[in-house]
Amino acid sequence: MHGLHLTADLYQCQGSPSLMLQADAIAQLCRAEVEKAGLTCMADKWVTFPGSSGSPGGVTGTVLLAESHLAIHTWPETGSVTVDVYVCNFSANNSSKAYALMDAVLAAYQPARVMRQQIQRGDIQK
Amino acid sequence: MHGLHLTADLYQCQGSPSLMLQADAIAQLCRAEVEKAGLTCMADKWVTFPGSSGSPGGVTGTVLLAESHLAIHTWPETGSVTVDVYVCNFSANNSSKAYALMDAVLAAYQPARVMRQQIQRGDIQK
Repeated sequence: MHGLHLTADLYQCQGSPSLMLQADAIAQLCRAEVEKAGLTCMADKWVTFPGSSGSPGGVTGTVLLAESHLAIHTWPETGSVTVDVYVCNFSANNSSKAYALMDAVLAAYQPARVMRQQIQRGDIQK
Repeated sequence: MHGLHLTADLYQCQGSPSLMLQADAIAQLCRAEVEKAGLTCMADKWVTFPGSSGSPGGVTGTVLLAESHLAIHTWPETGSVTVDVYVCNFSANNSSKAYALMDAVLAAYQPARVMRQQIQRGDIQK
């Protein structure tokens, strides 16, 4: 279960507002970019939060991959988004696919600033 | 969107085999422990993988929280599990709830060995 977990915290996103507010638009982006990256979507689930004080609510969701998962949370109040891409390298090294998927999602959101981190999950020893 | 992301990679799990193999059992555990920790389940989604070479397949899934997400992937072939608990501290500091949830899930799986990591997500500046 050795794998690579990428995180990105996005600020001042300048992409389409639909990618902050509309679960369908985010799901469509994610499914398309998962496929382009050569990863396998097994299922996905999305929740749209009610807004408050006249502001629209954000969206939270995950795509369950054969290789692990993609997760996105949006905060339209602040123009912020967090993204996780976690791939297991159980049967193949999927690291380059994980980077490609993260890069594609970031390109869609167009953040003015992004904080990226990564951690190695598990170890080779079983 | 400042938050805390906990990860745990579990080896040689000695808890109930149902927690490696049965999506319903894992979902029930997760929903119960999310509630006990004082976090809020919005939705969840689970996938059971087909087995191979006579071995049963694992389960992958997430619970979408009002505070972000819980994700679990099981590998019954090796007795391994990965767990993510990510909580945003947008309206309150949920860090202690995240630790409580992670500890409860680990207690159920009873790993002989566990590798825990944590990262701070986002920053206070918006």
